[in-house]
Amino acid sequence: MIVKIDLSNDNSYKIYIEKLQALSFDRKVVVVTNPTIAGFHLEYLKSKITAKELSFCTIPDGEEYKNMKTLEMILESCFEAKLDRKSLLVAFGGGVIGDMTGFAASIYQRGIDFIQIPTTLLSQVDASVGGKTGINNKFGKNLVGSFHQPKAVYIDSNFLKTLPKREFGAGVAEVIKMAVCFNSDFFDWLEKNDLRDEKNIDIAIQKSVETKAYVVSIDEKEQGLRAALNYGHTFGHVIENLTNYKTYLHGEAVGIGMCMANALAVKLGLMTKEQEQRVENLLKKYDIPTTYKIEDVEDFYEHFFLDKKSSNSKIKFILPVGIGDCKITDEIKKDDVCEILKGF
Amino acid sequence: MIVKIDLSNDNSYKIYIEKLQALSFDRKVVVVTNPTIAGFHLEYLKSKITAKELSFCTIPDGEEYKNMKTLEMILESCFEAKLDRKSLLVAFGGGVIGDMTGFAASIYQRGIDFIQIPTTLLSQVDASVGGKTGINNKFGKNLVGSFHQPKAVYIDSNFLKTLPKREFGAGVAEVIKMAVCFNSDFFDWLEKNDLRDEKNIDIAIQKSVETKAYVVSIDEKEQGLRAALNYGHTFGHVIENLTNYKTYLHGEAVGIGMCMANALAVKLGLMTKEQEQRVENLLKKYDIPTTYKIEDVEDFYEHFFLDKKSSNSKIKFILPVGIGDCKITDEIKKDDVCEILKGF
Repeated sequence: MIVKIDLSNDNSYKIYIEKLQALSFDRKVVVVTNPTIAGFHLEYLKSKITAKELSFCTIPDGEEYKNMKTLEMILESCFEAKLDRKSLLVAFGGGVIGDMTGFAASIYQRGIDFIQIPTTLLSQVDASVGGKTGINNKFGKNLVGSFHQPKAVYIDSNFLKTLPKREFGAGVAEVIKMAVCFNSDFFDWLEKNDLRDEKNIDIAIQKSVETKAYVVSIDEKEQGLRAALNYGHTFGHVIENLTNYKTYLHGEAVGIGMCMANALAVKLGLMTKEQEQRVENLLKKYDIPTTYKIEDVEDFYEHFFLDKKSSNSKIKFILPVGIGDCKITDEIKKDDVCEILKGF
Repeated sequence: MIVKIDLSNDNSYKIYIEKLQALSFDRKVVVVTNPTIAGFHLEYLKSKITAKELSFCTIPDGEEYKNMKTLEMILESCFEAKLDRKSLLVAFGGGVIGDMTGFAASIYQRGIDFIQIPTTLLSQVDASVGGKTGINNKFGKNLVGSFHQPKAVYIDSNFLKTLPKREFGAGVAEVIKMAVCFNSDFFDWLEKNDLRDEKNIDIAIQKSVETKAYVVSIDEKEQGLRAALNYGHTFGHVIENLTNYKTYLHGEAVGIGMCMANALAVKLGLMTKEQEQRVENLLKKYDIPTTYKIEDVEDFYEHFFLDKKSSNSKIKFILPVGIGDCKITDEIKKDDVCEILKGF
């Protein structure tokens, strides 16, 4: 099936959710991947892709390598392959590969095309769609980057067969995020169907991608609605930061963050206890963590201000309104947040 | 006087050519400059600018520092000043400062605003207008960067009073470039008027900026016409590269490059000998170099392929058609180019 994402300035593109088709490019192509994905799937990809000149750039696997140094490795590969302005980058891997390849494409010779072939559930349902690119640095996550839309996204759920169970759960957290924020029918469906059942996964991917496409087409550069996709992330980023990005996968931290946002929503009367429980149950069904022991509530709160989504010392929270709707607000009192945090 | 540059997607902006007005910003601002400009003009700038929070980032002076390391210094200053998505960068200096500040602005938190206050003639007539940003690396010049338009450009020719004579000449080379490519009346005017005469300089800046604004508004991302602004640059970049960016200022290398392009145009019947001489005379009037001793013609030719403007092994030449018009072509025979180079 195909989901179209409608954007201005010739930025529109299609997301193909199907077995990877044969791809042929009459231009130079560099595929960016990592050793893990390459080991499982590179031969398969090679059988599917032809180009005028095809070369490969393998970067180390893991969030800790999502930095300027690795970005320079990708750029160096592009120069060595003598890519020109008409050449193409292919991101073949998870969210880290996608974000860094997109960023490299956006600044190589002031911008060339790239496509996404995401191989993790998290990147298939979320990261590969929408054109956010970036790298981390000592100040935080994704603080340097660009908006650069891919020319196409090819999502083949067969790649998920080699995905570790924890990473699958981390991806499901983002699926649940979409449902809670935007689509109560989808949430109901998720409660009734197991995504580990092969027949269901493409439906869940499609629903998630449709939701994301809708949000991004309304607000490409996150000046309003798109911020809602950060539900769970305001808290999640702090958890990742406090644990040095080592204890939790991104999606896992988001899962915990959603539970914190829900608790705040319940306190403020935006969500019922029963709805909060339903979300928690769904997360637990996939072994996604839902609690985190906070050592120092004040310190946790201070960490919000390191996050780029806050501006002028106001923190932006995304709070669910029941299930299927949400609100973006920077008017939450510190006391309310801290009280919730103390309860965790 | 004000020149407006019309672009799509809210990218339009105004170029103010006048004594610097008082500027007031209700947001955090970081001014990027270098020790040379700061020494001459920073106190003056401070007397003109107010902001919610104002800080300064001083980077080393010179083309050799236009690299990733210095870019990271600028980004670090932004993080330390805790700039948010609504903050502003100010480029206060020549082309290097402008290109790097613009690039930093385009990738800091996926893009924030910046303005240009150019202090060299070259940046006033050319580099500060049009949104090309970038850095150099071992593969060549401006090979990593972005298109990111400033929100405004403030051109005050009073800053030129402290500009070394050679740098003034290098700027004039770009003024002559605009006239030869696009405007024969302007060229005639340049022959009759001396830019070292204070009353003439604002007129020359205005004419140059109007020309650039016209070209960029038609072709913001250099998919066609804008390439004409690279007249003299195809050859000039090779000269800069072969001399390790040390012998010639950029504008000087462009001056020599224009003479090479003219010689090629004469050979191909696009320009008369007399027209070629008029351009050369004008360059010489400002002591801009017009010759370069080529040691190895084959090697010089090979260097074209390092330049990003070439694609698929075809080199794009910008050749004047008489004075006031030009053509962009990638159909020039190697033999013709080499014959011209041998004559230099």
